[in-house]
Amino acid sequence: MAKNLEISMLLDFYGEMLTDKQREVVSLYYNEDLSLAEIASIAQITRQGVRDSIKRGEATLIDMEERLKLAAKFRQMEEDLTKIIACAREIVFEAEEIPRTRPIIEQAKEIERIADRLMD
Amino acid sequence: MAKNLEISMLLDFYGEMLTDKQREVVSLYYNEDLSLAEIASIAQITRQGVRDSIKRGEATLIDMEERLKLAAKFRQMEEDLTKIIACAREIVFEAEEIPRTRPIIEQAKEIERIADRLMD
Repeated sequence: MAKNLEISMLLDFYGEMLTDKQREVVSLYYNEDLSLAEIASIAQITRQGVRDSIKRGEATLIDMEERLKLAAKFRQMEEDLTKIIACAREIVFEAEEIPRTRPIIEQAKEIERIADRLMD
Repeated sequence: MAKNLEISMLLDFYGEMLTDKQREVVSLYYNEDLSLAEIASIAQITRQGVRDSIKRGEATLIDMEERLKLAAKFRQMEEDLTKIIACAREIVFEAEEIPRTRPIIEQAKEIERIADRLMD
């Protein structure tokens, strides 16, 4: 069972489709990086129970992304927002060398603020 | 059973979680605006069967949005992208009156292109 960032991201998107128990153990395993033994102790179930719950939770998350592809869509969006921020900074950088560009600088900074907020 | 844009939007997001039959009838009803009788004729089931299938499909779509809230998140994102486009256009408008701002105009147009693509 490989730990990876992917599952952690899918948990953010689709975690609410898991049972409370699945969500708890998947989060402890992938977000908190606890061992199966540690999670078994916290969740008061056997290590095998933890393993099964993680497997089922993972399968649900992966199935949902294969169907809906919303995490991939958001990731593409984040790449594009990063490009928008880079362009906005370039505008500020250029405009600071040119007189009478205060309104341009303000608009570019507003673009950067909005794009930054969208990345949260 | 009120027809509305909301279900059509949720179908775009979560349609792949429905059965093929549910997806078909919900789409014919909400996207193509066909009557129950017309859909019954196309899908070769009774009007009551169509009605039941739409009801179940709708319930799944609404339940998914209540849990995941991804359609609401995308809608907020679209509002913010609209603001970014407005800022970018304002930059172009301002910069066209000022000498030596060609690189600024190019960056602003690039921002508009990226944001437009994200809205698709």
